[in-house]
Amino acid sequence: MASSAPDIAPDDSRFGLDRLVRLPGAFALQSGQGLNGLDIAYETYGVLNADASNAILVCHALTGDQHVASVHPRTGKPGWWARLVGPGKPVDPQRHFIICTNVLGGCGGSSGPGSIDPATGARFAMAFPVITIRDMVNAQGKLLDHLGVGQLLAVVGGSMGGMQALDWAVAYPARVRNVVAIATAARHSAQNIAFHEVGRQAIMADPMWQGGAYLADQPPVAGLAVARMAAHITYLSEAGLTEKFGRRLQDREALGFGFDADFQVESYLRHQGLSFVERFDANSYLYITRALDYFDLAEPHDGHLSRAFAGVQSRFCVVSFNSDWLYPTAEARRVVKALNIAGAAVSFVELDSPFGHDAFLLDAPEMNRVVDGFLKSGA
Amino acid sequence: MASSAPDIAPDDSRFGLDRLVRLPGAFALQSGQGLNGLDIAYETYGVLNADASNAILVCHALTGDQHVASVHPRTGKPGWWARLVGPGKPVDPQRHFIICTNVLGGCGGSSGPGSIDPATGARFAMAFPVITIRDMVNAQGKLLDHLGVGQLLAVVGGSMGGMQALDWAVAYPARVRNVVAIATAARHSAQNIAFHEVGRQAIMADPMWQGGAYLADQPPVAGLAVARMAAHITYLSEAGLTEKFGRRLQDREALGFGFDADFQVESYLRHQGLSFVERFDANSYLYITRALDYFDLAEPHDGHLSRAFAGVQSRFCVVSFNSDWLYPTAEARRVVKALNIAGAAVSFVELDSPFGHDAFLLDAPEMNRVVDGFLKSGA
Repeated sequence: MASSAPDIAPDDSRFGLDRLVRLPGAFALQSGQGLNGLDIAYETYGVLNADASNAILVCHALTGDQHVASVHPRTGKPGWWARLVGPGKPVDPQRHFIICTNVLGGCGGSSGPGSIDPATGARFAMAFPVITIRDMVNAQGKLLDHLGVGQLLAVVGGSMGGMQALDWAVAYPARVRNVVAIATAARHSAQNIAFHEVGRQAIMADPMWQGGAYLADQPPVAGLAVARMAAHITYLSEAGLTEKFGRRLQDREALGFGFDADFQVESYLRHQGLSFVERFDANSYLYITRALDYFDLAEPHDGHLSRAFAGVQSRFCVVSFNSDWLYPTAEARRVVKALNIAGAAVSFVELDSPFGHDAFLLDAPEMNRVVDGFLKSGA
Repeated sequence: MASSAPDIAPDDSRFGLDRLVRLPGAFALQSGQGLNGLDIAYETYGVLNADASNAILVCHALTGDQHVASVHPRTGKPGWWARLVGPGKPVDPQRHFIICTNVLGGCGGSSGPGSIDPATGARFAMAFPVITIRDMVNAQGKLLDHLGVGQLLAVVGGSMGGMQALDWAVAYPARVRNVVAIATAARHSAQNIAFHEVGRQAIMADPMWQGGAYLADQPPVAGLAVARMAAHITYLSEAGLTEKFGRRLQDREALGFGFDADFQVESYLRHQGLSFVERFDANSYLYITRALDYFDLAEPHDGHLSRAFAGVQSRFCVVSFNSDWLYPTAEARRVVKALNIAGAAVSFVELDSPFGHDAFLLDAPEMNRVVDGFLKSGA
């Protein structure tokens, strides 16, 4: 596919932070359903170069957003991947044109269950169609068309972002030169699905959920907090939890013989649950976890992952962390093996970290060196 | 301690299935609180021999009960450990006098949050004092006094039952000749506590919980089911889940693009949650998980587990399963190491199983051989 000629004027409203675009027309979904008009909330950093060859798409994880390297407007916290994306970082707005979109189904402005259904004038809620990772990728493709980006220098993501990155190479082989897939897998395991189902049941069990039709200011916070707590345990390693909290008590000298948070780990988890509900929507959580559960690149190929990768044209960099039990190294190796069988160029590294799945979001100098080297060698 | 002379008449109402005794007087708890009168629901199997030397106490896990080898009166299912306890089994009513009690805090008839508070005439609910593993052990000790059992041939338990078994040897060194501790640990880890806290928050978030004051026929079933689902994942291994369910669909040919149970693992988990609420009480779940979280044999000894075992007089048999990530082999090794430092006689075996923590409740011929050999050599 030939890339459109770049045409960035400094005042081109397509570019910059906190963008929102409505792409008109029908948007077909894997389910067979469709959306009439597609909203995409996104940010761009840096400038698209003259031959439009420096564009990098960064894809976010389950509870991430488009603010990859800018201050989050609601929480005031730095961008969720400012350690990897920013001036002097491996993904660098001084060299790269960086795009990050809120995923389809999300709650950061892109079309999702919180959007208005044009057919009814009311929020979709659970009438929003179930979406998939491929649908997210297709929506990003539409945005790239809108931005005049034909081919990506790279697509980079961790966790669910890594799934999007892998799926980009499968769905649009000619549009992706390099794929960086970190702490991810080519499918959701039975255990992954099980944990998501617990979270969904916690949300749906909350009477405030109201079948998804809760008012914006009366969300099912208790159920969503429990869902987040259960999920959060899977983001950390047992060793990391022991190192960080062990059995240390919270603000007390002795056991309280009650049901307050005696232990630091309880207090921490409760905080994770409560702060999450301030920034995330319960219905979006349902839809995005469902998209993750449905993800299995090998499924259309009778379980043969290498066949899914048969037509890829990208170079791949696959990174796992040895304490990640959500998407363990074994799943990364499965991806690498299948890519090798498919004849793709792939480099793989398992990094040491005590921090479990969360490691990719934390200070990870080795990960940065790996990504930097990979991108520079494939520029 | 000298054992009381056995005095079993065939019609002695202290012995047999489905027993309930009220032991009058004050029962002191570790919290400093106490109970005025102690109910213990229990079963016995077999006959206490003339010198009262053949008594084996079997201790149950978090959601177990006293029906170790008899049909459960509510579910109609066989006893939860009929594979280990029964005629011709390692714990054999033809040779042993077997006792199994519903733990203090439980919902099978022993004193717990569902009991009537004699001070008010109403259910305790959350006014029931927080209890510990030691309190459970002390309650069992009172029952043994009542039954005329001075010294136990053995105390045998898995999971929380194994914690009681270890604690028996620490609390009553002269009363326990042999300890069999299976799939257990000497403390709850930060991750263990975290999972329990998710379950408790799920229960407490259910408006039907009513601060614990729910009516017996209006329990917080949704919250308790979510708690059970989260816990149940920790009882199985990732490999076991993959082998049992993988990504196989439930009663359908293709993904449903909805929020029904598409996957078998979802359907299975939902069933686990729903069937659990029919046999277990939500407040008991809160109290027993709290007792587990509080368990740390080394805590009174500045973290030195070997000092906790300094006075033990029992022989020990410690068994772990290599796919158990709830109480992993590393925790069993920690127990074994401390027992060795304390100079105790201890044998240890890690068994192969794909079934995770649940392995000890399933068909486990190797486990049976180990327990049988250990008990016969120490009779």
